[in-house]
Amino acid sequence: MERILLGHGSGGRLMQELIKNLFQPEFGLNNLSDSAVIFDSDLYSGCKGFKQAFTTDSFVVSPVFFPGGNIGDLAVNGTVNDLSVAGAVPLYLSAGFILEEGFPLEDLKKIVTTMSDAAKNAGVKIVAGDTKVVEKGKADGIFINTSGIGIIYRDINLGADRIIPGDKIIVSGLIGEHGVAVMSKRHGLSFEPPVLSDTAPLNRLVELMMRYNPSIKMMRDPTRGGVATALKEIALGAGFSLIIYEELLPYSAGVKGACELLGIDILHIANEGILIAVVSPEISGSLLDIMKTNPLGRNAAIIGEVASYDPNLNGAVMLRTSIGGTRIVDMPYGEQLPRIC
Amino acid sequence: MERILLGHGSGGRLMQELIKNLFQPEFGLNNLSDSAVIFDSDLYSGCKGFKQAFTTDSFVVSPVFFPGGNIGDLAVNGTVNDLSVAGAVPLYLSAGFILEEGFPLEDLKKIVTTMSDAAKNAGVKIVAGDTKVVEKGKADGIFINTSGIGIIYRDINLGADRIIPGDKIIVSGLIGEHGVAVMSKRHGLSFEPPVLSDTAPLNRLVELMMRYNPSIKMMRDPTRGGVATALKEIALGAGFSLIIYEELLPYSAGVKGACELLGIDILHIANEGILIAVVSPEISGSLLDIMKTNPLGRNAAIIGEVASYDPNLNGAVMLRTSIGGTRIVDMPYGEQLPRIC
Repeated sequence: MERILLGHGSGGRLMQELIKNLFQPEFGLNNLSDSAVIFDSDLYSGCKGFKQAFTTDSFVVSPVFFPGGNIGDLAVNGTVNDLSVAGAVPLYLSAGFILEEGFPLEDLKKIVTTMSDAAKNAGVKIVAGDTKVVEKGKADGIFINTSGIGIIYRDINLGADRIIPGDKIIVSGLIGEHGVAVMSKRHGLSFEPPVLSDTAPLNRLVELMMRYNPSIKMMRDPTRGGVATALKEIALGAGFSLIIYEELLPYSAGVKGACELLGIDILHIANEGILIAVVSPEISGSLLDIMKTNPLGRNAAIIGEVASYDPNLNGAVMLRTSIGGTRIVDMPYGEQLPRIC
Repeated sequence: MERILLGHGSGGRLMQELIKNLFQPEFGLNNLSDSAVIFDSDLYSGCKGFKQAFTTDSFVVSPVFFPGGNIGDLAVNGTVNDLSVAGAVPLYLSAGFILEEGFPLEDLKKIVTTMSDAAKNAGVKIVAGDTKVVEKGKADGIFINTSGIGIIYRDINLGADRIIPGDKIIVSGLIGEHGVAVMSKRHGLSFEPPVLSDTAPLNRLVELMMRYNPSIKMMRDPTRGGVATALKEIALGAGFSLIIYEELLPYSAGVKGACELLGIDILHIANEGILIAVVSPEISGSLLDIMKTNPLGRNAAIIGEVASYDPNLNGAVMLRTSIGGTRIVDMPYGEQLPRIC
């Protein structure tokens, strides 16, 4: 009998297969996007042309408290970011709690306060909630689902089909901070300076980018499965290959050290406060300058570009290493870092 | 140290205290409604007067498969119903899965197919999803969160403040079926004829009621905490007391027998396919006739009314027993029937 594996929740290939073979056909979903699906409100008389984004995400991170945040701000920022990279202004969130009997009320209060602060910080409202409790041993402390609604920018038109060779790939900040922060706490490791989760709301950075130039072609937040998975999805969607350059990747010394120590590919590590954008080369330089004026974009970098059409390589992501080699970047097959978000 | 108790998820007083003392002040929620919170979209230019309902619910029912349904249709219908009793036409749902490592894929497929069928049956679309997997022993098979968006009927105006003495209380169907179905499976009991969950989408019944007369004052779906909790919330919101009559309550022989056997108050048992409506006496009779034309309303009954103002009784729910006595109906304090939905 086939059974669910940890890898089915990894953000990698096993999960994509589950989505493609089960959820997509059963629910009639028309894209594989992490969670945000956009619908047009032409249905509602008087609201022609008005579009919303609607997204959902459950958070099961372990441990619940980690350097730089806890499950609460992670849950708020995660849904804010899913809406943001879908080209929407996040407005309303719901919060569904599944609590294990015996969970300390003090911890719940801390988490709820963190959620409230995160919502205020992002400028969104938590307007609906639900609480369930299961017997001791039937959950792991606390799981939180957040769903969210946002209004799509009227002049944005995101889509992998708009991507062409020569387009530039921008990453908005340091890679790998969240995953390493959670793992360090889990394994009792510490770094000097400490590696903190990058959990943060990306909506104001996206607003800044949109105001400068709404011609951005695609955005992704590289959470589960890391930058590798986000790039692979972009490459597959666009039907071209992507080339990124090792020496252009922004990361901290702490994250680099942790990856070497733990034997993990930095490109597979989850991030919770950065985005990847694909833009035309004409605007890439000035957009980067604009992004750097926002605290969440100060380490933004152009890390590569879309390669010319090559039937043998389309859909591939290639990394040029600093010593001049090339290696294929793929999404992880299963689970390297369970319960990172 | 204070800890989370099963009762914090019961729908009863302990849960209401948690909401009132923690979630409501932290999130700035302005009502205690189960989950649906309504907002006006005046914010969106060109959509003046257009109102949405947004709701969330997590499902942790045990066992996952029970007579008459499984966690899948329960999750779809539950959110459809929250939107319906908020006076909205349900349109879009999200589905967030938390799976335990080792959960049989076959069961997941059955559940997802059931969800898909339930969505089609209710006429809603599941448009966003998310899947997380936790290690064996860290969850109980499967938990599902559904969130939903609906459009509020333009001419409806629900609110406890519209309730006045003399208003009639209608319940749309047999009481207690869902809770008894789940418990019977859990305890290995069987009834002849079998008691099946009443899980069903209420949106078409609400549409029928709305078309007949949109002056309905309040609706509630009496899920966790049962009819008692829903009535108590209505009484507290209205600031009057309610009187219901034991001989008018609609229930099946199987449910009555199970309640006696298990020593449980039928008014505390969860329902997943009925609603309670408060309406003016003038329309109550004909509305009841209309409701009976829908399969989900064929057992509808007027079960009581709003009593005259009495400062000593306001907010109370009183049951006139068949032998002529009166007893106070209260919401359960804590958890009688854990994980019923």
